[in-house]
Amino acid sequence: MKGKLLYEGKAKKLYATDDAEVVLVEYKDDATAFNGEKKGTITGKGEMNNAITTLLFTLLAKEGVENHFIEKINPREQLCRKVEIVPVEVIVRNKAAGSMAKRLGLEEGTELKTTVFEISYKNDDLGDPLINDHHAVAIGLTTFEELKAIYNMAAKVNEVLSAFFLKIGITLIDFKLEFGRASDGRLLLADEISPDTCRFWDAATGKKLDKDRFRRDLGSVEDAYHEVLSRMENAGE
Amino acid sequence: MKGKLLYEGKAKKLYATDDAEVVLVEYKDDATAFNGEKKGTITGKGEMNNAITTLLFTLLAKEGVENHFIEKINPREQLCRKVEIVPVEVIVRNKAAGSMAKRLGLEEGTELKTTVFEISYKNDDLGDPLINDHHAVAIGLTTFEELKAIYNMAAKVNEVLSAFFLKIGITLIDFKLEFGRASDGRLLLADEISPDTCRFWDAATGKKLDKDRFRRDLGSVEDAYHEVLSRMENAGE
Ligand SMILES: Nc1ncnc2c1ncn2[C@@H]1O[C@H](COP(=O)(O)OP(=O)(O)OP(=O)(O)O)[C@@H](O)[C@H]1O
Ligand SMILES: Nc1ncnc2c1ncn2[C@@H]1O[C@H](COP(=O)(O)OP(=O)(O)OP(=O)(O)O)[C@@H](O)[C@H]1O
Ligand SMILES: [Mg+2]
Ligand SMILES: [Mg+2]
Repeated sequence: MKGKLLYEGKAKKLYATDDAEVVLVEYKDDATAFNGEKKGTITGKGEMNNAITTLLFTLLAKEGVENHFIEKINPREQLCRKVEIVPVEVIVRNKAAGSMAKRLGLEEGTELKTTVFEISYKNDDLGDPLINDHHAVAIGLTTFEELKAIYNMAAKVNEVLSAFFLKIGITLIDFKLEFGRASDGRLLLADEISPDTCRFWDAATGKKLDKDRFRRDLGSVEDAYHEVLSRMENAGE
Repeated sequence: MKGKLLYEGKAKKLYATDDAEVVLVEYKDDATAFNGEKKGTITGKGEMNNAITTLLFTLLAKEGVENHFIEKINPREQLCRKVEIVPVEVIVRNKAAGSMAKRLGLEEGTELKTTVFEISYKNDDLGDPLINDHHAVAIGLTTFEELKAIYNMAAKVNEVLSAFFLKIGITLIDFKLEFGRASDGRLLLADEISPDTCRFWDAATGKKLDKDRFRRDLGSVEDAYHEVLSRMENAGE
């Protein structure tokens, strides 16, 4: 059933399956940051991110966000609908942090007058640069109509996840999404949602529970990922 | 009538006048590039840009684009309605060039599937970074409503200027606009439109007739500015 390797990324491997519409996603322990410049391993990350993504995509499906997730088949692997990835990363920000804080000269954690949606061009050679809707359409990455649907879905994801994480004492600061086009043309949320792709701050203490611990050498990286997963499991989702 | 110096920028000086609603704008020969890192002088630039901006803002007013221009009072100076500048630069692009070409890995002159509108945060310390509408609203630079009005005006400017320059054998590749809020709350096109703020390519030969000659040390800088102005004057606008 695990067919040929279709793609090896920095955090996951994609394999073909018997079904041309289905891919097997294997989550790796490898961690990278700064467009691959910093490399390392986070023990247990593959299993934790497989579990976290499974819980979140299941929750999102229940809440009406159509996505690629089919089922988790073992600790490291899940089956997903194969899609053609829209070559933009969609970032949703509830507070300023990371590259946005730097770009705009803001303290991390600054409150925003509106939720920020950003897109970047998925292109490693160019460093995944920030772009706007016009750029994306001008070079044929997507259309204004598809972007509208993407932003609507991203807003819904933010609503569902912000509320969910709040219940388990975590502030969802920002996160990155990817979308894909299924063979029937439907737009699906794809890829993963995990501490690799979100900023999670403990609501009470502000402690970072995400990949920034790895990026910034803050220590206790595995513990942070584990803390997120165990709070999620205890929430019964 | 020329009151106290209100602001000295890289290309212009603004003076108060007897009328609190009116500023005197003096165009300098100073040229800068790369956020002030490269400095120089373009002989006659002040007079040429004062003349070019006068012609273009007059044309735009006639075509219904409300703007700050009142009258040219001498070769280097014009009177303008005083505005509170919206702290974003608006860039309109008909073909890829400059920072957009670099950001997206495109050849200069690449055709675009849609006209590109960009905004950047007017903040020299941060290097006038590209932002999107959400960023601008999130940090209180403007509102979504004001941006909508700004983009509508920018599109109209592009329509009018592209047609005008085409008639005089010049392709309008891209340009930068600034907008301001007048004391009565109306949104006005402000600042200048000149070879300092546009990319002009000769329609027949592709020869650059703008500040890129200075930025890239292409020579004949003054001649290029003069060529643009004299074609405009011969067009009788
Ligand atoms: N359902 C899907 N069908 C096809 N491709 C998918 C699907 N979900 C995610 N992908 C893609 O699979 C890859 C996942 O691997 P990984 O996250 O390790 O990549 P990466 O190193 O982040 O690189 P990049 O995202 O820049 O390609 C990504 O390219 C992602 O866009
Ligand atoms: N009608 C107006 N009322 C008030 N300010 C104006 C008006 N038109 C233009 N300005 C502002 O006047 C200044 C013009 O000077 P100049 O173009 O030399 O500035 P600059 O060096 O480009 O710097 P800046 O980053 O401030 O634009 C700019 O700050 C511009 O925003
Ligand atoms: Mg990835
Ligand atoms: Mg200026």
